[in-house]
Amino acid sequence: MRLDPVLSRIDADRDAALERLFALMRIPSISTDPAYGADCARAADWLVADLESMGFTASARPTSGHPMVVAHGGSGARHVLFYGHYDVQPVDPLDLWDRDPFDPELQDGPRGPVIRGRGAADDKGQFMTFLEACRAIVAEEGALPCRVTILLEGEEESGSPSLVPFLRETADELRADVALICDTQLFDPDTPAITTMLRGLLGEEITIRAADRDLHSGSFGGAAINPIRVLAGILADLHDESGRVTVPGFYEGVHDLSPELAAQWEGLGFDAGAYLGAVGLSTPAGEADRSALEQLWSRPTAEVNGIAGGYAGAGFKTVLPAQATAKVSFRLVGEQDPHAIRESFRAMVRDRLPPDCTVEFHGHGASPASVMDISDPAFEAARRALGPEWPNEAAYVGAGGSIPIAGYFKTILGMDTMLIGFGNADDQIHSPNEKYELSSFTRGTRSWARVLDALAEG
Amino acid sequence: MRLDPVLSRIDADRDAALERLFALMRIPSISTDPAYGADCARAADWLVADLESMGFTASARPTSGHPMVVAHGGSGARHVLFYGHYDVQPVDPLDLWDRDPFDPELQDGPRGPVIRGRGAADDKGQFMTFLEACRAIVAEEGALPCRVTILLEGEEESGSPSLVPFLRETADELRADVALICDTQLFDPDTPAITTMLRGLLGEEITIRAADRDLHSGSFGGAAINPIRVLAGILADLHDESGRVTVPGFYEGVHDLSPELAAQWEGLGFDAGAYLGAVGLSTPAGEADRSALEQLWSRPTAEVNGIAGGYAGAGFKTVLPAQATAKVSFRLVGEQDPHAIRESFRAMVRDRLPPDCTVEFHGHGASPASVMDISDPAFEAARRALGPEWPNEAAYVGAGGSIPIAGYFKTILGMDTMLIGFGNADDQIHSPNEKYELSSFTRGTRSWARVLDALAEG
Repeated sequence: MRLDPVLSRIDADRDAALERLFALMRIPSISTDPAYGADCARAADWLVADLESMGFTASARPTSGHPMVVAHGGSGARHVLFYGHYDVQPVDPLDLWDRDPFDPELQDGPRGPVIRGRGAADDKGQFMTFLEACRAIVAEEGALPCRVTILLEGEEESGSPSLVPFLRETADELRADVALICDTQLFDPDTPAITTMLRGLLGEEITIRAADRDLHSGSFGGAAINPIRVLAGILADLHDESGRVTVPGFYEGVHDLSPELAAQWEGLGFDAGAYLGAVGLSTPAGEADRSALEQLWSRPTAEVNGIAGGYAGAGFKTVLPAQATAKVSFRLVGEQDPHAIRESFRAMVRDRLPPDCTVEFHGHGASPASVMDISDPAFEAARRALGPEWPNEAAYVGAGGSIPIAGYFKTILGMDTMLIGFGNADDQIHSPNEKYELSSFTRGTRSWARVLDALAEG
Repeated sequence: MRLDPVLSRIDADRDAALERLFALMRIPSISTDPAYGADCARAADWLVADLESMGFTASARPTSGHPMVVAHGGSGARHVLFYGHYDVQPVDPLDLWDRDPFDPELQDGPRGPVIRGRGAADDKGQFMTFLEACRAIVAEEGALPCRVTILLEGEEESGSPSLVPFLRETADELRADVALICDTQLFDPDTPAITTMLRGLLGEEITIRAADRDLHSGSFGGAAINPIRVLAGILADLHDESGRVTVPGFYEGVHDLSPELAAQWEGLGFDAGAYLGAVGLSTPAGEADRSALEQLWSRPTAEVNGIAGGYAGAGFKTVLPAQATAKVSFRLVGEQDPHAIRESFRAMVRDRLPPDCTVEFHGHGASPASVMDISDPAFEAARRALGPEWPNEAAYVGAGGSIPIAGYFKTILGMDTMLIGFGNADDQIHSPNEKYELSSFTRGTRSWARVLDALAEG
């Protein structure tokens, strides 16, 4: 396809594209609140009409919750599935907004104009960049350069209860070569990113029990085992001196970065001091021989997310408690097997139990990491295509948390996902005064035209 | 004095003595409940009259709470101060009692008759053994063989708010050579005991803080320090492999048992398995090279009484908490200095803090151990005097918890205390169906006659 005329059309159509986004943002499609059910349906219908207007075959598919919008268009050797979500977060507390969250407008911001309003970044503004790119291509070229399937969900902000059943039912219709999602951030305002590593998560709750009742520490202290002490010992030994996790076999399936990726991350110039400084910290606390970015993106962790035992209220109570409990989670990377790690952790805890203690485990989810196969030439094609649109080249980056949809696309539809988003860290998604940089919207739209062009060629 | 006629008179007077105890028990002198204020005053008046009837100069002294009964009688080289308390615990839940708690009666029990009712053991039945012994001696001999001051408190079950001021105000009147308290237990039903070691208590609350807010473990896990992990490490290191407390200088002032005391304790045949088995445990958990009795009575401890941090509710939250807190207490023995240990513990915690963490300490009381000087011949005289009354010789024992009054007598009145009581572990003090063995009452009365005789002679 001829890219330059498409990019010029995108620029020329900017005000109309913004008005379309504002029209969508004016629909208060809050998925968690049943009072907005009709608005969610209205947003879905608006999108069906918009997609049909640019030649897609589109429909709103009913679910037990809010509808899924599915559209098909284009043709070519490459088939991509684009995913976004048209529902938005609630807006409370309303008095912290500087205007009606569903009356969007352009405002001045420190880095240039911003689109202010609920859904500006999460995810209406983001996914509309893809639709605007499609619109410009169709207008200029007459057709999309590859086969495009679009899935727009209406329940992402309320836990996606219908998503997995819907993916299973429509797998044959939705399956493509690669998925595209526009719901992540730039690495920094000048540097686009494709997120290719998402850490998995394993949750375990452990309860250590000793005496069959709470004891008085005067009558029993010294002779009766204290389950808080036992628990503290187990938790303290989860890491060695260098910060490595000590669960046997934990690092099986954890790989070092390739030299190429290591060099790319090094080149990002990540400012660990600023990142930690924003929350009152200064020193990366993970494995001593790993960079802060590795600690956050490509290294697994063990964390205690909660602990409770004995008397923790005001004042003091000389109790030897009958039990103590902790919630422990592991962020997983590479090919770490959550089920094997769960069993190994449990065995480690059991091995450390002193006489008279028992342990009860309660599992809280076990999802492996998502690691995209960036040796697939489509990834490198997309990464190279992004570069000319931004001051810096695009980078493959990681994410410390998981994005469940990417895991579902892999396990249910058998395909990798390119997470390409144009958000910024200060977009205040889920908070009052959500915004999206106007430059994210315009450069994002142009970026998708470049990526679709590259994927069609590649 | 002629002991045998006194003992015979005690036996002959048993039914009348029981009726006096029942009359006192029928007064519901619950000190914590203002509704029973008049009953507390009535119990005090009853005691004043009873003490006067046997020749004491007695009066009920007003306090800001319930009155103190003070009585003086007898003469001789030795001066003893006897302490008891006439107030009782509340009786809720009333439906778990098998009769009116303030309508005492003799009932059959597995080891013989028992006196059933609130205050039977704690402390009316116990302290009346001393008064009955005095009554029999005065009736038989015409006078007590030593100088006896009696202090009966009416607020022991509600925290003794008036006690310290009263002791300070009347110190010159109350000061004696030694204090006697009848509010403890036999070692076992056949073995009387003089409690000569009471552990002290030091309480510390520590709060470790890291980031200035709770963090998401996906965004920060691996690079941000987790204060629960820091706290767990500190708590885990409070003991070494052998169970010793690792706070520097902790064992200064901790002495090994004398060979005599060690042999006495060995001879008690303490059944650690049964003691721990009653609460679902089996294995003494303290210092590996110490007997269970030492762990409970003569060895210091460090215990975590409570811990809290992060999310501990239902389900799971992948939070990296901003802070974690623990309540730690130390049971102290010998001459351990609570203030020095507090400083050493705090320094140890500070030394272990990693970068970005701060700690806040909150002290919760610091009382040293009470250790009676059993080289004072009065102790050995009393111990030998108890023997003939019981199947086994009397033992010097320890108590894992503190009894504040013994500490006050030491610090305010400058004297040691002989804690001699005749209760049993199954007396259900503070619980429904409180009882006191009839044999505790009769042998207890005879025991005090023997002890007073021995103290007068010694």
